Amino acid sequence: MTAATTDVPVRQASLRTHNLGLVLRQVAASAEPISRADVAAATGLTKATVSTLVDELLGGGLLVEVDPPPRTGSGRPAIGLRLAAKGPAGLGVEITVDAIATCVVDLTGAVRVALRQVADQREREPGAVLADAAALAADALATARSEGVEPAGLAVAVPGLVSDGVVRLAPNLGWREVNVAAAFTDGGLPGPPSVENGASLAALGELQAIGDGGASFLYINGEADIGAGVVLNGHLHRGSRGYAGELGHVTIRPDGPRCRCGARGCLQTYASLDVILAAAGLDGAPLARLAALARAGAHPALMALDEAGTALGVAAADAVNLLDVETVVLGGGYALLAPWLIGPLEREIADRVTAHQWAPVTARASTHGESATVMGAANSIVRAIHAAPATYLRPT
Amino acid sequence: MTAATTDVPVRQASLRTHNLGLVLRQVAASAEPISRADVAAATGLTKATVSTLVDELLGGGLLVEVDPPPRTGSGRPAIGLRLAAKGPAGLGVEITVDAIATCVVDLTGAVRVALRQVADQREREPGAVLADAAALAADALATARSEGVEPAGLAVAVPGLVSDGVVRLAPNLGWREVNVAAAFTDGGLPGPPSVENGASLAALGELQAIGDGGASFLYINGEADIGAGVVLNGHLHRGSRGYAGELGHVTIRPDGPRCRCGARGCLQTYASLDVILAAAGLDGAPLARLAALARAGAHPALMALDEAGTALGVAAADAVNLLDVETVVLGGGYALLAPWLIGPLEREIADRVTAHQWAPVTARASTHGESATVMGAANSIVRAIHAAPATYLRPT
Repeated sequence: MTAATTDVPVRQASLRTHNLGLVLRQVAASAEPISRADVAAATGLTKATVSTLVDELLGGGLLVEVDPPPRTGSGRPAIGLRLAAKGPAGLGVEITVDAIATCVVDLTGAVRVALRQVADQREREPGAVLADAAALAADALATARSEGVEPAGLAVAVPGLVSDGVVRLAPNLGWREVNVAAAFTDGGLPGPPSVENGASLAALGELQAIGDGGASFLYINGEADIGAGVVLNGHLHRGSRGYAGELGHVTIRPDGPRCRCGARGCLQTYASLDVILAAAGLDGAPLARLAALARAGAHPALMALDEAGTALGVAAADAVNLLDVETVVLGGGYALLAPWLIGPLEREIADRVTAHQWAPVTARASTHGESATVMGAANSIVRAIHAAPATYLRPT
Repeated sequence: MTAATTDVPVRQASLRTHNLGLVLRQVAASAEPISRADVAAATGLTKATVSTLVDELLGGGLLVEVDPPPRTGSGRPAIGLRLAAKGPAGLGVEITVDAIATCVVDLTGAVRVALRQVADQREREPGAVLADAAALAADALATARSEGVEPAGLAVAVPGLVSDGVVRLAPNLGWREVNVAAAFTDGGLPGPPSVENGASLAALGELQAIGDGGASFLYINGEADIGAGVVLNGHLHRGSRGYAGELGHVTIRPDGPRCRCGARGCLQTYASLDVILAAAGLDGAPLARLAALARAGAHPALMALDEAGTALGVAAADAVNLLDVETVVLGGGYALLAPWLIGPLEREIADRVTAHQWAPVTARASTHGESATVMGAANSIVRAIHAAPATYLRPT
């Protein structure tokens, strides 16, 4: 989309807002500290305009100046600019069936604090789980502040269907109509919290990690349930009502096994982590055990992984036929199992995607490990700051 | 997306470009002629700015003034503005297995010229088909010009996989690697032509017809093959390489009948128009015959339609689970059969879409009939003019 199709009048005030973002993102895109003159050249803004905007971003705590490199040749080296590591940051929280996690990511994308409590959350009251998560977030906030980092927003990742801050349904946790946002509005946490599906936030984290602003991919998250995030042209597709990404309930066989959702033959019934472990005769075992057996060439493990990879491939091929994304990313537990899932998955895509010959698709493991989702949550706030820095300027 | 995330520097020149579009779209959005003062109030621009921009749009042939309504009460009625019916317009061409069509749509969205040649195109050389289509387009262009309407761009709709102006594969037509764009670059046609998948353009036409700038829907086009257009938040999703919308090859059963594409169990093998007719014992009959039999309650016809609607529903449910669109639109031949397809289709969606309880989905027939695709092609040009009118100002 270009500016021309954005129905917002551009007047002087929004011009400043727009260009502040432009300058900040130009600094962010530069691997090395960048001078005001280079920002001007890259953005097409005048040097005078850039100087004014940079002063605002420096004063507001979003940029810092760094000393020029030693003088080489003629001319005086210019002062460089880079993103402020101490300044507005993102606070992320993740709730899964077996852990609560939180982290703080600063404006440069660096993880400054990361806390994780491993414990089964399924037997507990939602209120107790949320209170623990909010307390953990408050700990992370205090630690970040002690380092001069100030989280400017909070995103909470939960497994399941989410809208308006409410978990409508999280089958694994046994949650239904749980107001998650309300649990994070006290205790001095930055607010209001945004609550989103975990796989969607993991996809956003992957987008940040690969550093390709226009990437399109399907992120498939293997947790207790199968989640997915759909990233199109560098944007997370959330859906009309916020429920996109339910890849786990794409139909593999219309008359297949009954799924917990009530339908038959959902991907979930062929390729969830529990189903893979059971098929390999490893009910309840850790995934690492399955991976070790597969590495040793154990037939039941390899068979189970091939069947799951095939089902994942059928569902991924549906998504690729529909959306023409160039990559399928395996995250969560699937990242560990990727060496055995990718073969059958890519085979199904090659067989089933009509345009495959002209538009090949690659499958790969996610960039981040088990922290992908909570980092994605924190990064979603950092992303918002990059998109609209004027909103986050510290009063000078 | 907001202006803040668009990485284009906004300077005075692009400010004007942006605001020209803003004013034009404000006039377009008004059912009645709208005054300069009302445009200013609606856009937030100053009256002086609006006046300058309106003068440019009037001079450039995109807007016209209309006399004020008779004086009622106090004050002098203002001169109204509306889109120019005589001015830049869109020229669309459609090639299908059994027809060539062309039409001109003016800036107000009205169809000014529509020509259709019905003839089987499958036995013919691609070059001959394209020459006929270009000649028909030239006829439409001449007719439009004689009415003072000047097509400012050309879009060509073809069934199949298209990229860079080339039809990579159109199984129905028997085309492979046919350079369609090249056939439309001579003969005084406006250019360069954009070449796109027909179902995608039909979806764009539907978006225009419903007048909801932020709609999300899956458009399923029943022609010789099944095509689809994916519209997300008011934008056609074309895919990373332009191959989105291949719903016909979504898997219904991984070990189902062999599809012409080489895979097994594609939607195409369960629900293409040919398959429905064959299942009803009406091989090669017109669709109207099938509809008449269904209306009369003939069992084989009803069974065939129920089976096709079920398969369409399984594929549509996959798309809804993945994308959370609120509507499924049945176009092409499916529009005629919609009374019998919608029931099973909506049943599968209700059964298979996880978020259905919170985010219901409606299925309906398309707004336009058989002309949906060619109108969508012409409308894609009109849409481009609305998005960036500065590019289309006639020299004054």
